[in-house]
Amino acid sequence: MPKIEPKSGWKAKLHEIIYEADTPAGKFFDVALLVVIAISIVLVMLESVNSLNTKYYWHFYIAEWIITFIFSVEYILRIISIKKPKHYIFSFYGIVDLLSTLPTYLAFLFGGHNLLFAVRALRLLRIFRVLKVTRYIGESNRLLLALRNSRPKIIVFLFAVLIICIIMGTLMHLVEGEEGGFDNIPLSIYWAIVTLTTVGFGDIHPITPLGRFIASFIMIVGYGIIAVPTGIVTSEITRSQRGKIPKNTQACPHCNETKHLDNAEFCHNCGKPLNEH
Amino acid sequence: MPKIEPKSGWKAKLHEIIYEADTPAGKFFDVALLVVIAISIVLVMLESVNSLNTKYYWHFYIAEWIITFIFSVEYILRIISIKKPKHYIFSFYGIVDLLSTLPTYLAFLFGGHNLLFAVRALRLLRIFRVLKVTRYIGESNRLLLALRNSRPKIIVFLFAVLIICIIMGTLMHLVEGEEGGFDNIPLSIYWAIVTLTTVGFGDIHPITPLGRFIASFIMIVGYGIIAVPTGIVTSEITRSQRGKIPKNTQACPHCNETKHLDNAEFCHNCGKPLNEH
Amino acid sequence: MPKIEPKSGWKAKLHEIIYEADTPAGKFFDVALLVVIAISIVLVMLESVNSLNTKYYWHFYIAEWIITFIFSVEYILRIISIKKPKHYIFSFYGIVDLLSTLPTYLAFLFGGHNLLFAVRALRLLRIFRVLKVTRYIGESNRLLLALRNSRPKIIVFLFAVLIICIIMGTLMHLVEGEEGGFDNIPLSIYWAIVTLTTVGFGDIHPITPLGRFIASFIMIVGYGIIAVPTGIVTSEITRSQRGKIPKNTQACPHCNETKHLDNAEFCHNCGKPLNEH
Amino acid sequence: MPKIEPKSGWKAKLHEIIYEADTPAGKFFDVALLVVIAISIVLVMLESVNSLNTKYYWHFYIAEWIITFIFSVEYILRIISIKKPKHYIFSFYGIVDLLSTLPTYLAFLFGGHNLLFAVRALRLLRIFRVLKVTRYIGESNRLLLALRNSRPKIIVFLFAVLIICIIMGTLMHLVEGEEGGFDNIPLSIYWAIVTLTTVGFGDIHPITPLGRFIASFIMIVGYGIIAVPTGIVTSEITRSQRGKIPKNTQACPHCNETKHLDNAEFCHNCGKPLNEH
Repeated sequence: MPKIEPKSGWKAKLHEIIYEADTPAGKFFDVALLVVIAISIVLVMLESVNSLNTKYYWHFYIAEWIITFIFSVEYILRIISIKKPKHYIFSFYGIVDLLSTLPTYLAFLFGGHNLLFAVRALRLLRIFRVLKVTRYIGESNRLLLALRNSRPKIIVFLFAVLIICIIMGTLMHLVEGEEGGFDNIPLSIYWAIVTLTTVGFGDIHPITPLGRFIASFIMIVGYGIIAVPTGIVTSEITRSQRGKIPKNTQACPHCNETKHLDNAEFCHNCGKPLNEH
Repeated sequence: MPKIEPKSGWKAKLHEIIYEADTPAGKFFDVALLVVIAISIVLVMLESVNSLNTKYYWHFYIAEWIITFIFSVEYILRIISIKKPKHYIFSFYGIVDLLSTLPTYLAFLFGGHNLLFAVRALRLLRIFRVLKVTRYIGESNRLLLALRNSRPKIIVFLFAVLIICIIMGTLMHLVEGEEGGFDNIPLSIYWAIVTLTTVGFGDIHPITPLGRFIASFIMIVGYGIIAVPTGIVTSEITRSQRGKIPKNTQACPHCNETKHLDNAEFCHNCGKPLNEH
Repeated sequence: MPKIEPKSGWKAKLHEIIYEADTPAGKFFDVALLVVIAISIVLVMLESVNSLNTKYYWHFYIAEWIITFIFSVEYILRIISIKKPKHYIFSFYGIVDLLSTLPTYLAFLFGGHNLLFAVRALRLLRIFRVLKVTRYIGESNRLLLALRNSRPKIIVFLFAVLIICIIMGTLMHLVEGEEGGFDNIPLSIYWAIVTLTTVGFGDIHPITPLGRFIASFIMIVGYGIIAVPTGIVTSEITRSQRGKIPKNTQACPHCNETKHLDNAEFCHNCGKPLNEH
Repeated sequence: MPKIEPKSGWKAKLHEIIYEADTPAGKFFDVALLVVIAISIVLVMLESVNSLNTKYYWHFYIAEWIITFIFSVEYILRIISIKKPKHYIFSFYGIVDLLSTLPTYLAFLFGGHNLLFAVRALRLLRIFRVLKVTRYIGESNRLLLALRNSRPKIIVFLFAVLIICIIMGTLMHLVEGEEGGFDNIPLSIYWAIVTLTTVGFGDIHPITPLGRFIASFIMIVGYGIIAVPTGIVTSEITRSQRGKIPKNTQACPHCNETKHLDNAEFCHNCGKPLNEH
C-alpha cells in the first residue's frame, strides 16, 4: 500500500464523512449512527426481559438482522475509506465494531443463540462512540481536563478509602463474626465499602453494640471524607474556567490520530497533511 | 377584540392585582392564593389516607367544594382581566388552573369519584405558582442562573452517569443472573442507578463474589463522581456572586410576557406599554 | 430591685464564673458543668437499655439523685448571681435547666417513674450549653456565619426539594398504588424524601417498571442537586475566610446579653458597664 | 553505644536502603516490601473464607511461613542497620512489624491456631507502610495539609452532627418506642447516624406517621449539612494550590526522625548529619 500517494477523491470524502464531524454530511452520519446504536442497545435490553422475548420473538429476530446489516455495511465502509485499515481494525473501536456484528452471524451458522446473547451485549460498548458527539458540547472537554488534572489526588484518595475499608472490614469480621453476616474478610470489606460510600443496602448489618459503634464511625468518616474528592474537583473546575478548549474533530486520514489543534494543517503524529482533497 | 385600545380602569387594576406582585394588593392576592393552594394540596394528601377518608368523608367533601369554588372564581377573574384571554387559557398555568377546578364538577355530574381522584392530583401542579413568590427572595434567581449556566456541563455529566449505569447494569445481569434478582437488563440498570447514586434500597443486591466486586467498583465510582456536579455548580455560584439580579415581577397586560428588565417601560415581546393606568 | 446600684462583690464574681468564660475559674466551671451534663446524658441513654436498667437499677437511682442535686445547686446559684433573675428564669436555658431537675423530684413525690422518663430526656437539651464552649474554637463562629449568610439560598433550595418530593410522591402513589407499599400520598412523599436524599431504607420500594423508571429519575435528581447546597456553602466559606471572628464570651451582668465586641466596655443592649468589680 | 562515632559503611548503606527512598535500591526495597505486604494481606483475607481454608489449608500454611520468614529477616535488618534500635523497636512501626511475625511462631509453639488468627490480622496494620510510598505522589502531602488545616472546623462540624444525632435518636426512641425497633436510646442514636449520613440500612425504620415525619427532617438535614465539610475542605484545597510541597524522604540514621526539609544536611531533631557515608 503506497504511503505518500494522496487518497482518491471519493475515499477522502468518505473518510471525512465517517471519521470526522466538521462537515454537515459528517455530522449527519454521526447522528444517524448514534440513533442506530441507541436502537440496538434498547433492543438488547428489551430482549433480556423474558416476558417480552417470548411474546415478540420474531420482531426481535428481524430487528436484530436489520441492525446487524447496517453495522456490517458501516464496518466495511470504515475499512475501505481509511488508508491504513490495520490501524482501524486492531484499534479499540475496530474490535468493538466487529464484535457488534459477528454474534448474529455466528448464531445463524452454529445456532447457539443463548450463549451469544452475552457476546452481543458487547454491542453496548459501541455506546462509547456517542462520547465523540459530546465533543460538540465544548464543556465536556473542560470537565475531562479538570478530572485528568485531579487524577493523582483522586488516586491517593481512593487508595486511602481502600485502606480504611480493608482495616474496618477486618475489624468488623473479628467483632461481629459469622452471626451478623460478616462471614469472612472479603465480605466484610464489601460491607465496609457499601457503608463508607453511604450506599447501605442493608443485606448485611451489624447487630452487636460494639459492631454498631464501629459502623457509626465508618459512616461518619464516609460522610465526612466525601468532601475530599469534591474539594479536589471543585478547585480544578474553578481553575479550568479560564483555559481554552480544543474543538477540532478532525482525524488524520493516514494514521487516524485525533485531538489535533484547532489550526492544525498537518498531523502531529505522522506529519501528513490533514486536508488533501 | 380591539387590540390597541387601552384597558378599562378596573380591568387594568384587576390585572395588576392578579398577574403582578408589585403593589400591596397584588402581594396580598398572591399570598392568599398560595394559602388556598397549600390547603388544597394538604386536603388531596389527607384524602388519600384511607382511614382518614372513611372517618371525615363529609368534611373532605365540603372543603373540596369550597376550594373548587374559590379556584373557579379566580379562573374567571383571570380570564376577564387579561386582554387576550387565549394567551392565558392555552398557557401552561391556564390549563393547570382549569384542571384544578374541573374534576370536582365532573365528579358531581357523572359520579366517577374514584377515577377523578387521580385527575384532581393534578391540582398539585398549581404548586408551581408558589415559585413565583420565591422571586421575592432575590437569591432564587441567582441560584437558577447558576444552574442554567452549568446546564451543558450537567447534561454531559448525567449522560456519562447513564452510560456507566447501562454498561454496569448489563454486566451485573450477565454476572449475577436471575438468582440474585438481576432478572433482566432494564432491572439491572435500575439497580445500577440505585447503587451509583448511593441510595441503596437493598431490594436487589449481588450475592456472588464477582458481582460484589463489581458492585464495590460502582459504589466507589458513584461516591467519587458526585464531586463533578458539585464542582460545576460551586464554581458557577462563586462566579454568580457578583452579577446583578432582575427583580421585576411585571407581566405585560397585552401578551402576559414576564421577565422584563427592571427599568422596562414597554413589553419586549409585543412592544405595548407595560403601565397604562 | 434597684437597677443602677452596683452588684455586691461576691455576686459579681459568681456571675463572672457562672455566666462567662474569660477567667480561669469561669473556664473551669464551664468544663466541670459540661462533664456533669455529659455524664447525665450517658446515664439517660444507658437507663433506656432494659437489660442494664434491670441489673443496675439502684446504681442508676443513686447517680440520678447526685446529678439532680448538682443541677439544683447550679440552678439556684444562677438565680442568685444574676441581677434580673426573671431574664434567666424565663429564658430558653432557664426553662431547660429547671426541666433538668424537676422530673426526679416529681417522680419522688408522685411515684410516676415511667412517665417522667420522657420528661427527663429533656435533660438532653442541656447539651446545647456545650455549644457555648465551641466558641473557644474560633472556627465555629466562621462556620455559623457562613451558614447564616447562605440561609436565604438554602431556604429556597429546601423549598424546591419539598415541592419535588410532593409532586413525585403523589405521582408514585398513582403509579404504584397500594401493592408496592405506596398506600397514601403522605407515605409516598416520605418515600420520595428517603429516595431523593439518597438514604434509601428499602422498607418501601417500587415494583412496577414505570415506578422504577420514575424512582430512577428521582434518584438522579437527588444525586445531582446535592451540588446546590454544597455550592452555596462552599462559596460562602471561601468568602468568610477573610473576615474577623468575634471571640468575646462576656455576658452582661445586668441583662445577660451576650455576643459583645472584643473591645466592648459597656453592654450594647442595656448600656450598663460589662466589668464592674 | 557510642553516639558520635560515624556508622560503619555497610550499616549506613543498609539504613539508606531500608529506611529511605532516595536511591534506586531504596525505592526497590520499598516496592518489594509493599508487594510482600500486599500478598500477606490478601492471604489473611482468603484464609478467612471457610471454603477456601478447608480446600487449600496446606498452601496457606506454607505461604504463611514464607511470609513470616521474609518479615523476620526484614525486622532483624531494621534493628541492625539503625544506630539506636530502641527508637525503632518501641516506635509504632516497630511494634507492628514485630506483631506481624510473632503470631506464626507462637501458633507453632503453642498450637492455638484459631485464637492467633485475630492477632495475625494485625498484619493489616503494616498496610500503613504503603502510605510512605504515596509521598512520591506529591499531591498526597497537599491533601493532608488541606485536611489538617481544616481540622478545627471539621471537629466542630462532627460535634454538631453528634449532638443532632443524640437529640434526634432520643426523640425517635420516645416517639417510635420498641415496636418500630427503636428499643433503647443508644440504638436510636445509631439509627439517627445511619439516617443522617444517608447510609440507610433499613434494618430499623420508623413506622408511625410522626416518626416518619421526624425521620424526613433528619434526612433533609443530613442531605443539606453534607455541604459543610465539603465547603470547608474545598476552600482549603483551593487555598493550598499555591503552597510548596516537601518531597524529602530521608530518615535520620541516628534518631530515625523523618520529614526533613529538601535541602536539610543535619537532622532537625538530634542535630546529627543526615549523610555520613
